[in-house]
Amino acid sequence: MAELETFDNPHPDHDYVIKHIAPEFTSVCPKTGQPDFGTIEIEYVAGPLCVELKSLKFYLQGFRNEGVFYEDVVNRILNDLVAAVSPRKMKVTGSFTPRGGMHSVITSQYVDTGRARLT
Amino acid sequence: MAELETFDNPHPDHDYVIKHIAPEFTSVCPKTGQPDFGTIEIEYVAGPLCVELKSLKFYLQGFRNEGVFYEDVVNRILNDLVAAVSPRKMKVTGSFTPRGGMHSVITSQYVDTGRARLT
Amino acid sequence: MAELETFDNPHPDHDYVIKHIAPEFTSVCPKTGQPDFGTIEIEYVAGPLCVELKSLKFYLQGFRNEGVFYEDVVNRILNDLVAAVSPRKMKVTGSFTPRGGMHSVITSQYVDTGRARLT
Amino acid sequence: MAELETFDNPHPDHDYVIKHIAPEFTSVCPKTGQPDFGTIEIEYVAGPLCVELKSLKFYLQGFRNEGVFYEDVVNRILNDLVAAVSPRKMKVTGSFTPRGGMHSVITSQYVDTGRARLT
Amino acid sequence: MAELETFDNPHPDHDYVIKHIAPEFTSVCPKTGQPDFGTIEIEYVAGPLCVELKSLKFYLQGFRNEGVFYEDVVNRILNDLVAAVSPRKMKVTGSFTPRGGMHSVITSQYVDTGRARLT
Amino acid sequence: MAELETFDNPHPDHDYVIKHIAPEFTSVCPKTGQPDFGTIEIEYVAGPLCVELKSLKFYLQGFRNEGVFYEDVVNRILNDLVAAVSPRKMKVTGSFTPRGGMHSVITSQYVDTGRARLT
Amino acid sequence: MAELETFDNPHPDHDYVIKHIAPEFTSVCPKTGQPDFGTIEIEYVAGPLCVELKSLKFYLQGFRNEGVFYEDVVNRILNDLVAAVSPRKMKVTGSFTPRGGMHSVITSQYVDTGRARLT
Amino acid sequence: MAELETFDNPHPDHDYVIKHIAPEFTSVCPKTGQPDFGTIEIEYVAGPLCVELKSLKFYLQGFRNEGVFYEDVVNRILNDLVAAVSPRKMKVTGSFTPRGGMHSVITSQYVDTGRARLT
Amino acid sequence: MAELETFDNPHPDHDYVIKHIAPEFTSVCPKTGQPDFGTIEIEYVAGPLCVELKSLKFYLQGFRNEGVFYEDVVNRILNDLVAAVSPRKMKVTGSFTPRGGMHSVITSQYVDTGRARLT
Amino acid sequence: MAELETFDNPHPDHDYVIKHIAPEFTSVCPKTGQPDFGTIEIEYVAGPLCVELKSLKFYLQGFRNEGVFYEDVVNRILNDLVAAVSPRKMKVTGSFTPRGGMHSVITSQYVDTGRARLT
Repeated sequence: MAELETFDNPHPDHDYVIKHIAPEFTSVCPKTGQPDFGTIEIEYVAGPLCVELKSLKFYLQGFRNEGVFYEDVVNRILNDLVAAVSPRKMKVTGSFTPRGGMHSVITSQYVDTGRARLT
Repeated sequence: MAELETFDNPHPDHDYVIKHIAPEFTSVCPKTGQPDFGTIEIEYVAGPLCVELKSLKFYLQGFRNEGVFYEDVVNRILNDLVAAVSPRKMKVTGSFTPRGGMHSVITSQYVDTGRARLT
Repeated sequence: MAELETFDNPHPDHDYVIKHIAPEFTSVCPKTGQPDFGTIEIEYVAGPLCVELKSLKFYLQGFRNEGVFYEDVVNRILNDLVAAVSPRKMKVTGSFTPRGGMHSVITSQYVDTGRARLT
Repeated sequence: MAELETFDNPHPDHDYVIKHIAPEFTSVCPKTGQPDFGTIEIEYVAGPLCVELKSLKFYLQGFRNEGVFYEDVVNRILNDLVAAVSPRKMKVTGSFTPRGGMHSVITSQYVDTGRARLT
Repeated sequence: MAELETFDNPHPDHDYVIKHIAPEFTSVCPKTGQPDFGTIEIEYVAGPLCVELKSLKFYLQGFRNEGVFYEDVVNRILNDLVAAVSPRKMKVTGSFTPRGGMHSVITSQYVDTGRARLT
Repeated sequence: MAELETFDNPHPDHDYVIKHIAPEFTSVCPKTGQPDFGTIEIEYVAGPLCVELKSLKFYLQGFRNEGVFYEDVVNRILNDLVAAVSPRKMKVTGSFTPRGGMHSVITSQYVDTGRARLT
Repeated sequence: MAELETFDNPHPDHDYVIKHIAPEFTSVCPKTGQPDFGTIEIEYVAGPLCVELKSLKFYLQGFRNEGVFYEDVVNRILNDLVAAVSPRKMKVTGSFTPRGGMHSVITSQYVDTGRARLT
Repeated sequence: MAELETFDNPHPDHDYVIKHIAPEFTSVCPKTGQPDFGTIEIEYVAGPLCVELKSLKFYLQGFRNEGVFYEDVVNRILNDLVAAVSPRKMKVTGSFTPRGGMHSVITSQYVDTGRARLT
Repeated sequence: MAELETFDNPHPDHDYVIKHIAPEFTSVCPKTGQPDFGTIEIEYVAGPLCVELKSLKFYLQGFRNEGVFYEDVVNRILNDLVAAVSPRKMKVTGSFTPRGGMHSVITSQYVDTGRARLT
Repeated sequence: MAELETFDNPHPDHDYVIKHIAPEFTSVCPKTGQPDFGTIEIEYVAGPLCVELKSLKFYLQGFRNEGVFYEDVVNRILNDLVAAVSPRKMKVTGSFTPRGGMHSVITSQYVDTGRARLT
């Protein structure tokens, strides 16, 4: 995985929400070896740091040839981003294209209960 | 009915939502013998287990030639899935195509009041 | 008016929502004698009884040649359905096509405050 | 049936197309006695006369309680309008709401081969 | 301005919402003299009276050649309607077409705090 | 297969197009035994006969548990309908839901070159 | 009516199409005195001159309080613009909002048969 | 930056929301020098003052050739507008077009906790 | 590249069109090494052979980690498919997601002029 | 203006269409000095050369602070691209956002009559 780079939150006193939407996510099904496709949406209330966009792109591209389940990949992205930027709140959603006539949406979230404000 | 298979929730410490959308549901009207068509949407906060996707597909296909009412089928799917994966919360929605100029949407939900968290 | 038939709620222990959408509603304006058109949406949490779909269709067709105002027809349908199925909650919405460059949406609801649960 | 009124084409020297779209058409199925619903679209290149809009509305309302098949009603409307306004060209389309899981679109047209121009 | 006519609320015991949507609103910019265009949406919980639709149409047409600012017109319509029908709650929204590459939406509301119920 | 019933073309002198759209088609993949889903659209210029709608519904339902390839089913429906109603022109389109990340659309047509007119 | 101003076609040697879409057109019904609303679309292949946009806006605003029929206004706009800019081809379309449950679209065109090229 | 002009809130006693949507925002990426594009949406509950629309347009145009990050520009616009009109509440959203296959939405808000009412 | 498998055209006497739409295409930009994403649409009139769907999926997946330009990949897919199934006509379209604020659509086609019929 | 770079058509023997869509075009109105916004779409059948995408992006950015009329800019882009790549056919369309309540679409095309084939 490419490393997630960060920069200082330019408005740490503001209560604001950052959302990045990446519709070109692809990984590989660990069972069948077939490619999976989906949209990853990352929404967070920044604490001290923001994630740098180019490094986020490379980080997500790191899953391109890796075998990983839907339920797992969304939570791993959440874990890695929480570790990188220490947000007050963060939500990661993966919305995947149909397989076997069904499509799936996984949403995981993190709240720093001590620091979260009303946004 | 095909059996619902499960796997261990890979992130039991996370508060996350799994949604599977199956737009190719079909069963048979018990009154007229005519086929019914609809979309089944299953949304849950996993407890110890997750439902395996392929077995879910076969389970839903099990209704293909069975006579069942709208109000009944949605609640039966909910009951079977709650029994299989012991979710913290689960909601099943069936949205059916028009019959006699009207279409119907049935939504049933289950909450394990002791274990449900804020998601 | 055709009589509304009912059947026993097959899952009275469940907290679930039934919605029927009827986009082919038509009645007559009591002032001008001109036909009115709209969509009637009925959403309820069932108590002991559910409304039978075919009798609901015939009941709604009963307004086809009757003169009735928008504000009145929505509340009358609500009253008749509440009387027929004793729901825990019910909401009826009528959304009518434009007349004189304006269109109208009327929404009326009933709550059995003693029996309503969280759905 | 209400009579179709006409007025003199205000620009008989122009090659122009008039389209009236009536999404509130309803008639009755001659087999089942159940109401049918659809949109009637009338498109024509005027000859000496144009159809007056209010009389067209009343004419279409004349089918409200009449039993008539899809294939028949579209051709009857075409015949009546051709007789009323002697157009250079005319096309009538009826697009009907689903019955038994299928919906139907019927399109009939008339060309006065001696007078039709390029429009 | 044409006078707003009213009629007695036919179901004063019901808790219901009336919405009228008028997409053909036009007035004049008091600064430039240029016409403005927008959609006015009126939503209210009726008290003793309802507004009559035809008089509402004429009332809104009364702004056609009058110079008035966006922020002002929405609040004036709210004031006039509250005075006419004494609603339990009322919300007026004006959504205006782009001027100078920007479009504007103004929403004003009134609550009769003593009489408002849960709708 | 249910038999296709017909009725006499009520306007054999008119040049008109009949289209029936059936979004609830399902059959079975002959390779995998899995259900397939799609929309069948039938468009024709009638000759002496029209296809009766209810028998068409039962005919299409006849594929529900039959194994048949996309390319085959569309052409078989075309052949059966041409044999039943001797149209001047006919086009059958099957648009199928995604399998393996791809969806398919098959369109086949028949022209009675001696009798086809300009429609 | 405000005068239509023009400017020299900056590329008279090119075969190109200019389209102006004016969704804020309003006039008055000559029968009822009620306002009409619609979108006027003007599409032409320029000859020696182009129509200046601001003067076109003022010209169309000139119909704001004038009584004029749908069929007439579209042809009058065509005539005035053909007279002003001598196009090789021009098409004017008026698409009007619903009155009495029907909406209308009128399209008129002009071709300078001697000068029209293939565009 | 052009100065933000204001005018007195014409209805300071009303609890109403003003929203301006500016889809033609463009600035320059401070890293690459490449232009960025997006939509800025400003929503506020006015206190004593409203922002004048033309000056707002010129203010936003002031970013056209300035290098600024997404997270920064949204908060700067919020700060400048809060300073100019002292709102009871204000929210600014920037929704930017895709870069590197991802697009971003930033939302920042201000609440004057002493003066905010329920809107 | 995986080999394209074929099967005998089951209706070689019919004039019919087969379209396969693959929205999950991905390759790599030969200049930057960055992934590209797009939809490949293949439409053909079959000659003696049809392309087998599963082998087509594997063939398209073969581009996943290969560096290839837009203009090239569409024509290479066309060449490979023409060689595999000898169609009477074939069209391949690649529609790619935005890069640098622009997106591209490439369409290439082949006609066997001796054998093409009217479809 | 940045120079348009080209590369050799990789499939000069194929009859294929290349389309580039640039929704982030902006220039300046020569009359008012105000920014204009629109989408430029370039579609061509390549001759010996193709336009390189990055240089096309920079070329279009060259209009960012230049004053130019709609009718002029579309034809200038066409002229510059025809000069750069000698296409068999080319069409350039500019679709601009509303000004004064009207929006405009300009389409210009070039055909090399000696070399154009059927695409």
